[in-house]
Amino acid sequence: MSDFIEGRRAALEALKTKVPVKAVLVQKQQKGQKPDKKLDDIVKQFKDEHIAVRYVDKSKLDHISSHGAHQGIALEVGGYPYVSLPEILEAASSKNELILVLDHITDEGNLGAIIRSAEVVGAAGVILPANRSAQVGVGVYKTSAGAAMHIKIARVANLSQALQTMKEAGFWVVGASEHATQTLWQAPLEGKICLVAGSEGKGISPLVQKNCDFLVKLPQRGQLESLNVAQATTAICYEWLRRFFDEEA
Amino acid sequence: MSDFIEGRRAALEALKTKVPVKAVLVQKQQKGQKPDKKLDDIVKQFKDEHIAVRYVDKSKLDHISSHGAHQGIALEVGGYPYVSLPEILEAASSKNELILVLDHITDEGNLGAIIRSAEVVGAAGVILPANRSAQVGVGVYKTSAGAAMHIKIARVANLSQALQTMKEAGFWVVGASEHATQTLWQAPLEGKICLVAGSEGKGISPLVQKNCDFLVKLPQRGQLESLNVAQATTAICYEWLRRFFDEEA
Repeated sequence: MSDFIEGRRAALEALKTKVPVKAVLVQKQQKGQKPDKKLDDIVKQFKDEHIAVRYVDKSKLDHISSHGAHQGIALEVGGYPYVSLPEILEAASSKNELILVLDHITDEGNLGAIIRSAEVVGAAGVILPANRSAQVGVGVYKTSAGAAMHIKIARVANLSQALQTMKEAGFWVVGASEHATQTLWQAPLEGKICLVAGSEGKGISPLVQKNCDFLVKLPQRGQLESLNVAQATTAICYEWLRRFFDEEA
Repeated sequence: MSDFIEGRRAALEALKTKVPVKAVLVQKQQKGQKPDKKLDDIVKQFKDEHIAVRYVDKSKLDHISSHGAHQGIALEVGGYPYVSLPEILEAASSKNELILVLDHITDEGNLGAIIRSAEVVGAAGVILPANRSAQVGVGVYKTSAGAAMHIKIARVANLSQALQTMKEAGFWVVGASEHATQTLWQAPLEGKICLVAGSEGKGISPLVQKNCDFLVKLPQRGQLESLNVAQATTAICYEWLRRFFDEEA
C-alpha cells in the first residue's frame, strides 16, 4: 500500500527532506488550457532527481486526495526502508556507540524530533516496536526534518528480546526514568550504550525496565512533573556525546 | 481583547494546564431538554476552582466559535500575565542563574517546548521580543504543558537593550550558534548566564550577536545541518544545570 503527499508546497518539502518518492502524479493539461509554469517547474525538479512522473486525469487526483487540495500534483510515497536490528548492530562497530530504543512513543512529532536528535549526535540507529507505536511515514519524515532518511531505523516484534540481543553484542542498556536514583551525570555512559526512552504517558514498561542494566534521570528543579520525551532524550544524547567527544576530537 | 478556547476536551485540558480563564461560557439548557451530565460535570470542575460560569444562548457560542465545535462550552481566556525584565532580574538572586532570550522564535510548538524545558531546569525567566515572535497564548500554554504559568516571561521592545541591562546586572550573555568556534562543553557557564537562542530560519540576528559575550555550539556528527531550536536549547539548559548541580546537591 502506498501513501500519498498532495499539494505543491508539500511536494517541494518532500523533495527537500528526501522522502522516498515512487512516482509523481501530475494532472494532464486540458486542450486550450494555459501552461501552468509553476507546476511545470515543480515537476522539473522531480525529473532532475530522476523520479518517475506520470500524467493522469484530474479525476484520478481527486480520488487520491484526502481533502481536495492536490493543486494538480500528488506524490506516491513508498514505505519507509526499515533495516533489521542485526544491520544496525553490524554498523555499530566503534568504541563508543549509541542506539535508541523507543518504548511505544505514539506522537509523530516526538518520534520525528528524537530521530532528528539521534541523527545529529551520530547514533547508530533507532529501534521501534512494530505495534502500538508511531511509525516512520510522511508525518515523521517531516518532523524529523529529513533525518529519517539518514539514520538506520529497525522495527522489532519484541523489545525485551531486542534488548537481550543488544546486550549480547556488548551494549549497556540504560533506561531514562524519573524514578531513577542516579542522575544522568553520575551514570557511566562510556562504550556502547543502548538508551531506552518510554512512551509519553506511561514511561518505560515494567518488562522493558527489567531488561535495563540501570536507570538514569534528568534532575528537575521546576514545578512541572516532567520534560517532554523528545527534549529529555535529546539532553541525554548530548550528555552521551560529551563523554567522549574531547577524546575523539 | 480575549481569546476563546472551545469544546469540552480543550476546556478540561485548559483547566489541567492552568490557563488563566476569565469566565466559562456554557450553553443554557432548553426547556424540556435532557440534563447533560457530562457538561455539568465539566462546569462543576471550573466552579470548584472558583472560576466564573455564565450561562448563554447557543447563538452566542456559535458566534464565538471558530469552527462550530464548541459542544456547549467555551472559555474566555485572559491575556498572558507577562512580567517586566526588572522583575525577572530581581528574582534571579542566586549564585547560578539562567535567563533565556529568544531571538524571534516564530513557531508556537518550539516556544512552548523551550518554556517547558526552561521551567524544568529552574531558569529564572524567558525574554521574548514584542514583535515578529510567537507570543504566549492558548497554543503555547498547551505546547508548554502548562509551564508558561510557572515561569516568569517578559516581552521587550528591544533585545539588544535588554541584553545590555542583563550585562549590567552581572549576567554573561551566551549565544547559541552553529558558527561558534567553541563547543558548549568548553564554554564557561558558571554564575549568571543569559542564553540567547536564534529563530528557526535565521539563527541569532547580527545585532543581537554583537551583544553576546561569547558563542557556543553543539557539536554535530550527522548529515543534517542542524538541530531543532527547542532540542538544542534543552541540551544547553541541561549542560548549564550539570555544571553546578553537584555543588548544590
